[in-house]
Order: sequence, then structure tokens, then C-alpha cells
Amino acid sequence: MDFRFQLLSRSAGARRGVIRTPHGAVQTPAFLPVGTQGTVKALTPRALRETGVQMVLGNTYHLYLRPGPEVIEQAGGLHRWMGWEGPILTDSGGFQVFSLSSLRTLSEEGVEFRSHIDGSKHFLTPEKVIALQAAFGSDILMVLDECPDPGKDRLYLEKSLELTTRWARRSREAHRRLTGQRPLGALFGIVQGGLYAELRRRSVEQLLELDFPGYAIGGLSVGEKKEEFERTLALTAPLLPEERPRYLMGVGTPGDFLLAVGLGIDLFDCVMPTRAARNAAVFTPAGRVSIRRAEFKSDPRPLDETCDCYTCRHFSRAYIRHLFVAREILGAVLATVHNVRFFARWMARIRQSIEEDRFERFCAEQRNRWSAFTDNEEGAPPD
Amino acid sequence: MDFRFQLLSRSAGARRGVIRTPHGAVQTPAFLPVGTQGTVKALTPRALRETGVQMVLGNTYHLYLRPGPEVIEQAGGLHRWMGWEGPILTDSGGFQVFSLSSLRTLSEEGVEFRSHIDGSKHFLTPEKVIALQAAFGSDILMVLDECPDPGKDRLYLEKSLELTTRWARRSREAHRRLTGQRPLGALFGIVQGGLYAELRRRSVEQLLELDFPGYAIGGLSVGEKKEEFERTLALTAPLLPEERPRYLMGVGTPGDFLLAVGLGIDLFDCVMPTRAARNAAVFTPAGRVSIRRAEFKSDPRPLDETCDCYTCRHFSRAYIRHLFVAREILGAVLATVHNVRFFARWMARIRQSIEEDRFERFCAEQRNRWSAFTDNEEGAPPD
Repeated sequence: MDFRFQLLSRSAGARRGVIRTPHGAVQTPAFLPVGTQGTVKALTPRALRETGVQMVLGNTYHLYLRPGPEVIEQAGGLHRWMGWEGPILTDSGGFQVFSLSSLRTLSEEGVEFRSHIDGSKHFLTPEKVIALQAAFGSDILMVLDECPDPGKDRLYLEKSLELTTRWARRSREAHRRLTGQRPLGALFGIVQGGLYAELRRRSVEQLLELDFPGYAIGGLSVGEKKEEFERTLALTAPLLPEERPRYLMGVGTPGDFLLAVGLGIDLFDCVMPTRAARNAAVFTPAGRVSIRRAEFKSDPRPLDETCDCYTCRHFSRAYIRHLFVAREILGAVLATVHNVRFFARWMARIRQSIEEDRFERFCAEQRNRWSAFTDNEEGAPPD
Repeated sequence: MDFRFQLLSRSAGARRGVIRTPHGAVQTPAFLPVGTQGTVKALTPRALRETGVQMVLGNTYHLYLRPGPEVIEQAGGLHRWMGWEGPILTDSGGFQVFSLSSLRTLSEEGVEFRSHIDGSKHFLTPEKVIALQAAFGSDILMVLDECPDPGKDRLYLEKSLELTTRWARRSREAHRRLTGQRPLGALFGIVQGGLYAELRRRSVEQLLELDFPGYAIGGLSVGEKKEEFERTLALTAPLLPEERPRYLMGVGTPGDFLLAVGLGIDLFDCVMPTRAARNAAVFTPAGRVSIRRAEFKSDPRPLDETCDCYTCRHFSRAYIRHLFVAREILGAVLATVHNVRFFARWMARIRQSIEEDRFERFCAEQRNRWSAFTDNEEGAPPD
């Protein structure tokens, strides 16, 4: 397995690194747009590459249900299937099973659930989830975890965490058994434990024994308060080993990245830029703006005057507003191009500030503009 | 006004020509995809250019209602507004007023109608329709016509035709008055007359007196039988002057083009390739196929193995089927790229067969495959 993480430089708590995968390098900190169903919604792979995105996330839960692993494997893996030549990280489906599907039954063995598409029954185990991601040919695989509501009581969260650890061990073993048999990506563990400092610590300790090449923090940005998010992230991130990449799952806003990068996080994924775009919400240096607003009816300026994306080089706010008002597909396409490019440029600026050892200054300059917490106002399930 | 039509060669009844406009040349026979609301649905202008399309059609009715002519004029015209640098033909709105809007009141002066969007009342006159298209900066403008149901009685159609001629005269005069005041495209007349040979002849005679730089045949492919379509086209097309471009409005299928080009038609527009694409219907050398069909679930081949479009160079039938089944925007995008490219290549092959004086042989080889008549099975109003 051709996976390597190298730290290049630091600035305050932030790290500048590079992850090497069989499909190329990822300069960190990095943001991964979400390609749930084998497509980053509304973008061709060419348009995606042009945004400067380095790696995308695929959802194992969705791809397992549709089109199914056989179809993707037969096509030569997820990269060839979707026409994306860069690195791909797939999640384990744990989060979706607990957020999208109905009638879950959790057991030591795994989780039974009904498909959100057709109600059909399915059973996922840690081993099966590894096999699925191996069939996809993912560059980074994630272990199956239980992602409990952080509002559950401590006893529930403790038991959940212990189960997640036992599943992580089985995932690690399944991954080891497959190693050598076929090209296989790197497997990351996922820290759980809700908002309890002690449970988070215990989760990290147990996972470290399994010696994963990378660690994710799960179960955050799932409805908790801003203070709880920050406190839990601040106590968990420093427990993770320096020399391994750290991935904060499902986060977040430009402001969240400042906070989390400052705590040593290297990877992020979120549906925010793509989902916001489809809802006519575009990211600009002045914040997030609804391009439907009447004030843009004749506005000849690009969405973001500082942006170099295809959309901002060719189209006016007035035109893009019109596309949304007239319900034209091209509105979603052009807004997605811009938002993904906005996030890619934002991460590039963060990386540069670390290289030049002025990360704290960069944060001080930008923080007022981007309050650090996920404000995904649509509140819909992940796309 | 920088408009010129030049005949380059002939083969049987078919003509190979070139139309020169202020925004570039159009090699004829040519197919214009429809960009109803200032966008060829689902395509960026870049993707559109890559399909080999030379000219697009914009709908005056839609653009008048939304975003309104002021917005487009302020943006520097329709070309700049929508980011399409090539030639644009706009229709007059006549067809849409009679097919989309409700509560029409026709008078000598013009037509009052209610918007299909918000029910608001509007009044269009021949003069206003010229002013609208002048504001858009169209390369080819069309006169306002009444587009009656061909099933109406002869007396109705005769009166309608006479009104259309009087409107054509007023349009011509309005266009002359604007000439010199601002850059202005060429104005085409529209032949009406339903399915009556004598009325079609009379319409042509009356329009010829007005000396338009190009002539369109309207009121066909609007619900009549295949034989009626062919007969009416065959008797109307030869009446039009040799040295002017001839435009068959709202047509059609690959087979329709063979028939109509053979009768000397130079220009076509139709929503078929774009609308079919959004409904998962793709054009292939074997005919029109629904890519949703289960047989494509694991099919690794491109939509069309002879095609050089972006879609066929990068994606499998299986993947595109998946995108439609999963209701992903990218399905419509990729299928539209292919269908528009298919139509553009088809017209290029027709042009080449004329240049090489083997048009009849080309038709004989292809006609079994493409029966000549619009089979727009969706039956929905124009997009």
C-alpha cells in the first residue's frame, strides 16, 4: 500500500502536510467535497478538477445500495466508474445508517437497516464494509462505527463507544487479511464518545492500540451547541498522534476550518458548498449570500470579484440569479463550480499561511468574517 | 447590417451554404439547439461550443417575461448575458403565445395574453417584438406571426394568414426604422397557411413582396399527420427564393432533416435533443434509446461508440444510467452534451454528403434507421 503522510511545516497549532496515495498527493489541510452517489452533485470530473479540489469523498452507504458494489467493481473501481482520477476517501456508511435509514437493529455482529430508497432490508458488518470499500478501490477507507445522537445518556454513549472500538478491531483485522490479496487503500479509525471528555480519551486510547495510519473524529457537528463542538474538538484533537493525518468528519464552514486547523486537523469533508449552491447560496468574501435576492436582478458583477473560477470569469450575478428564478439546471452547475472553488481557494490560503508561519495572523484577520461553527441552515440530511 | 447568405454547392435538392452574421458564420444546413431562457438547458456555453453547435435559438416570449428586455440590454445583449459568443436567432414569441399562455385576445393591433408564469397580462405587437429582439441583439430576428392550430377551418386559417402578412409588413417597417439607429440583425418572414396548398402559396407570395433576407416555414410539426407534414413542406419549400436561407421552425428528428434538407431547407431548431436528454433518452446510430433500461446496468460501453463527445469519451452507459436512476443533475448534463453533439455531427455529415454530391445516397443509407417525422413522444410544450 502506497500511503504516506509527511509533515512539512507548522504554524501555531496548525500543520502543513502531504498525504500520498496511489492516485496522487493531497496537500493538507485539505477539504474534500462530497460525491455521495458517485458524482459531486452537478459537476463533471473536469469541472471538479478545475476547482482545484484534490480528493473527493464517496458514500459507501449510497453506493452499496445503488448501483451496488458489483457494478462498480466490474467497471474497474470507483475512480474509473465516475471518471475521477484523483484520490478518493470513502466513509463507512455508519453515519448514513444512523441518519438516513429507518428501523435499525444494532447487534454485536453489525447493523440491520432498511434502505431509504426502497425499504429493502440490509445487514452491514465491519468486515462487509471493508470489502465494499475494497471493491470501490478507495484510497482511504473508514471503519464502520456507531454514530450515536450526542444527546443520549452517558451509559448509552459508553456502550456505543466500546462497540465502535470492537468493530474498529474487526475492521483492522479484515483489512489486514485483504492486504496483499489486492490493491488496498489505507484504513482510518474513527474516534467517538459524544461530548464526554473521558469517553473521547478512552476512544482514542483504544484506537491507538490498533495502530491506524490515520484517525478521524466522528460524532461532531451533528446538532450539538457551538461551545460543545469547540470544547470536544479541542480536547480530542491533541490526543491524536502527531505523525498521522487527522480528519474531522462532516465539517464545515470556512470559520470551522480556521478553528480546527489551529487544533491540528488535516482533512475535512462537508456537503455545505455543494448543497448551498443548489439552494442558490453562494460563498463570497463578504459571507454566504442568497443569489436569488432581488438586489442582484441587474448586478453585472461576478459572484465574487476576487474569484478565478469558470463561473466568476464568465457570468454576472444577474444571470445566475435569473437561472435560479427560472429553475434552470445551469444555476446549480455554475453556483457549485464557484462554491467548490471558493472552498479550495480558502484551504490553499490556509496552507500558505502555515507555510509562511502566519497562520494565527491569518485567523485574526478572517475570524470576524467567518464565525467558527457549522451553520448549515438547510438542516436537510447529508447529500 | 453584416448579414449574408452564400450558396456553396448542391446535391439533388439539398443546398450547402454559409450564413454570415456579426457573431460569425453558420455552415448550412445547420441545427440550432434551443436556449429558451438564456441557457441551452444543462449546458455551459463552453460545453455547448464543444458540441460543434454553431448558432442557438432564444425564445423572445420567455426572455421578455423573465428576466425582461431591460436586464438583458443592460447586460450588453443576450450574447454577453448568457456567455455565448456565437450567432443567436430569436423567435418572435408567436408560437409560445399560442401554445403556452392562456386567455389570448387577438386583434389587428397585436395579441394580449396572460403570462404562463404568474398570470400577469401582456400585450405584444409586431413593432414591440422587433424592439425586444433588437434589445437582445439577435443576429436573426423573426416577425410576429399567428401560429394557428392547423385543424382550424379554412376560413379561419385564411384570415389568420392575412393577419400574419399584415403583421409581417409592420415588422418589416419597424425593422427598417430601427436600421442605422443601432446594430440590428436580419429579419426573417414566416410562411403560414396551415395544410392548404393555396394558402401556403399565397403566404409566400405576400411575404416575397416584403423582400425578407430569409424565410421560415412555420405552423408545421404542430400535431398534423406525417403525410400532411411532408406534403405541405414539399409544396412550400420550393416556392421560396433560391438565394435566401430557408428555415423550418421547430423541426425535428434526424430523419426529418434528411427529408427537409432534400427539399432545400437550410436551418432547423428543435428542443428534441435537449429535452430527450433530460428524460434519459439518448440518440445513437441505432436510434433513440432510454438509458434507464435495466440492460444497461453494467454496460461498460459509451452511449454511442462512434461518438467523440466529452460524455462518450469518459463515461459508461452503466454510469449514466445510474445517474438517472439516482436523480443526479449530472445525468441530464452528460446526456445533453451527447445528444447535442449527436445532432451537430449528424448535420456535419449531411453537409459533407452535399459537398461530395452524394446526398441522395446518404439518405438512402440512413433513411431506414431514421423514419422521417418528428416523434417527440414526450408531447410536452416546448422548453
